[in-house]
Amino acid sequence: MATFVFEIQKAEGKYIYQQIYKNIKGNILDGELLPNEKLPSKRKLANQLEVSVNSVTNAYEQLLAEGYIYTKERKGYYVENITQFITKDKSEKYKLPSDLKEAEVDREGWLSLSHMTSDTSSFPFSEWVKCQDRAIKNHRAELSEIPHPQGPYLVRETISNLIESSRGIVCEPEQIVIGAGTQSLIRNLMNIPRANTVVAVEDPGYSRVYKMLKSMDMHVHPIPLDEDGIDIHQIESTNSNVVFVTPSHQFPTGKIMPISRRIELLNWSVKKEHRYIVEDDYDSEFKYKTDNIPSLQSLDRNRRVIYTGTFSKTMLPGLRISYLVLPPDLLREYRTLYSDLIQGSNTLSLFTLHYFIESGEYTRHVKRMNHLYETKRTLLINHLFQKFGTTLEVDDTSAGLHFLARFETDKCYKEIEEWAKIEKLEIYTMMRFMLRKVVTKRNYIELIIGFANISEENIQEAVDRLYRVIK
Amino acid sequence: MATFVFEIQKAEGKYIYQQIYKNIKGNILDGELLPNEKLPSKRKLANQLEVSVNSVTNAYEQLLAEGYIYTKERKGYYVENITQFITKDKSEKYKLPSDLKEAEVDREGWLSLSHMTSDTSSFPFSEWVKCQDRAIKNHRAELSEIPHPQGPYLVRETISNLIESSRGIVCEPEQIVIGAGTQSLIRNLMNIPRANTVVAVEDPGYSRVYKMLKSMDMHVHPIPLDEDGIDIHQIESTNSNVVFVTPSHQFPTGKIMPISRRIELLNWSVKKEHRYIVEDDYDSEFKYKTDNIPSLQSLDRNRRVIYTGTFSKTMLPGLRISYLVLPPDLLREYRTLYSDLIQGSNTLSLFTLHYFIESGEYTRHVKRMNHLYETKRTLLINHLFQKFGTTLEVDDTSAGLHFLARFETDKCYKEIEEWAKIEKLEIYTMMRFMLRKVVTKRNYIELIIGFANISEENIQEAVDRLYRVIK
Repeated sequence: MATFVFEIQKAEGKYIYQQIYKNIKGNILDGELLPNEKLPSKRKLANQLEVSVNSVTNAYEQLLAEGYIYTKERKGYYVENITQFITKDKSEKYKLPSDLKEAEVDREGWLSLSHMTSDTSSFPFSEWVKCQDRAIKNHRAELSEIPHPQGPYLVRETISNLIESSRGIVCEPEQIVIGAGTQSLIRNLMNIPRANTVVAVEDPGYSRVYKMLKSMDMHVHPIPLDEDGIDIHQIESTNSNVVFVTPSHQFPTGKIMPISRRIELLNWSVKKEHRYIVEDDYDSEFKYKTDNIPSLQSLDRNRRVIYTGTFSKTMLPGLRISYLVLPPDLLREYRTLYSDLIQGSNTLSLFTLHYFIESGEYTRHVKRMNHLYETKRTLLINHLFQKFGTTLEVDDTSAGLHFLARFETDKCYKEIEEWAKIEKLEIYTMMRFMLRKVVTKRNYIELIIGFANISEENIQEAVDRLYRVIK
Repeated sequence: MATFVFEIQKAEGKYIYQQIYKNIKGNILDGELLPNEKLPSKRKLANQLEVSVNSVTNAYEQLLAEGYIYTKERKGYYVENITQFITKDKSEKYKLPSDLKEAEVDREGWLSLSHMTSDTSSFPFSEWVKCQDRAIKNHRAELSEIPHPQGPYLVRETISNLIESSRGIVCEPEQIVIGAGTQSLIRNLMNIPRANTVVAVEDPGYSRVYKMLKSMDMHVHPIPLDEDGIDIHQIESTNSNVVFVTPSHQFPTGKIMPISRRIELLNWSVKKEHRYIVEDDYDSEFKYKTDNIPSLQSLDRNRRVIYTGTFSKTMLPGLRISYLVLPPDLLREYRTLYSDLIQGSNTLSLFTLHYFIESGEYTRHVKRMNHLYETKRTLLINHLFQKFGTTLEVDDTSAGLHFLARFETDKCYKEIEEWAKIEKLEIYTMMRFMLRKVVTKRNYIELIIGFANISEENIQEAVDRLYRVIK
């Protein structure tokens, strides 16, 4: 019969049964109590420790549930036969290796000309919360269930109506797949098994997607851009069968793909079976001097375009609501492969988005942001020219949330990046987006300048810092 | 010089410039206007159409932006040389193939004993919205930026504190990776390139993950369970180096893995290099008669356990907030591979969760749900025994949101599923979770019965329907 030498502290507000449980557990793990040893009866232990039988019962039940002890009917409780731990690491207390520690990010005093942000100061949070109230009220049942793999039908219907009117997209709600970000949607799409997938991407281009495709062991060819965009002959020469493009506002150069190249690209897609074009329409909602440019998908007569859109740019980057529009044949394959995949967007946010769009709030918000961004863009470009004069060239496509600027300088990209850190200016150079990283020393550098998150009153200061960085 | 034959409708509230734009665009695409043909000057066309010069200017600008026309300085506007469309599909209007149409889901009159739902009737939405207000107020800057690949540090800190106290997890915030659902997190984890990954999973087990791993072309071995859980010898015999387990509440059988098997499993993991255990702690927050069972990770002295947790079960399934806790060596690889991957959880929800946990609301909610679920569970089991008597066996592990029940019947699984449809009862049979699908005809069937989403007043009716299904 096991005997225990431990004290119960009754004054510390600690549960007594937990103390008993911990002590016996410790004794078993340490080997103080041997396998098959009989434990004292509940009443006996309660008497010995001067606690209630209930406390001992709870402790024994917990030990039983976790498998430290077993019971024989009408005989009592016995210690289980427990294997000893093998411990390789003998160090006393575990510490995270220092290279994995995250440095605290100190953004104090920094200004940002990043293309990745958006201006949330004008986001109508109160309207959003009102729409959320409606979502909670009307969709409680759906919130308690695992969502449809493509997202709730109602929300897909709303999105399909929205993009039909704003982007000319021809699709049924069935063809929409909602997900938490374009990247993960594209990852799923590209995981559809397919013989000999060879991918062509724009260079310079969206390096995140390029890296992702490479990490998926895909054959990926960066294709240089000519005046009108991605070079069709080079696509042909690489035997690519999937092409990623940003026709509305080439990322990062900002060029709009002219109709002629669009038709050439669409014609390329029908010349052989199983060719597809992925149209990333990441910031097409923002056009400042012209109307929206119709999407490539709207021109596609053969259903070879996979359209991807996002609400990150127009609303909040942290919202994580993106979507694919799949051609029917791909939809069929997607459904077969991902019938069990739970889509990642927050259902409450999705229903909130539904009311936000339906009430007209979304369109009003985008319109407001268009004005706001146009003002900032113009102001920033004016300040840049005032400071840099003829040593600056700016691409004049009035669209999106960033533009390409070319500065005369003797500094190389590395130096620019180092100086920007010293000046506390967040800025991205063309280096980041040159997929083949062929840099020949020239007397200029190119920057991708975002204007979404810089406030009007900080523009002058940001330009001054940039001047010190470049000159 | 091109001439136009079209009329402008001035009375219909339509923008005049858009009519001009559309007409010229149509003429160019139809080949009515030939490449390099000169367009009339703005003034001339304005006169001819009896509209303002401004309208023509806007139309020309849009055509220019889209690449339908080009301009020669001081000479005017000319038609671009545009390739003709190749169209393979000659059908007039596109229709979605009927097999891809989604049937409307009619849940009218249905009752659910699904294990996948949760009860949202007691979710404190108003507290959630208050926490959201604080998140909006305090984290506006973070909302305008692309979130950290692992989720905001503050939120990871809060989660690490929470799971340290509730699950005994030993980790730093650095080790946490937040994502939109366990499935996508595991997909990323398993995509870390590794020589000869062989995976062992519990059978019966979580079929979604099994299918996902198979679809990733992994070697996956379903390993049968014995009394204490997954069979270690069989893991050894398959040469697996990654094991997926649900030790707190085996899915779907509901068994708790005893300490002895836990230690054996942990010892297995250190016997060779690069062995890992993935602990899926999907519903460990719910224990009805005992305290929480400490996690496997809390017992791991060699950092071979990858812990995964979720807020879907305790809060809302549609919230899509899950997380991994990675051992340091895997964290290092994860960071290298996914430095560019934007994590999928909604940032606003994450900061809201931070305040929800910090204010104690989360713990109060879980406690409330524990009571509520215990009541429902007891009531449902009582009703089942009243109806089925000795033809029923229920596994008595008081944990989680489902239990395993064994019913004497001559019907096979297929018949049960068909009858359940007729009775409008959502129910899942063991068939779904038997990964190797070896069904030998017996005189009983097993069901995984969830009680989260059935209301107390509907329990009797659900049991009556189940009786008609089974007998």
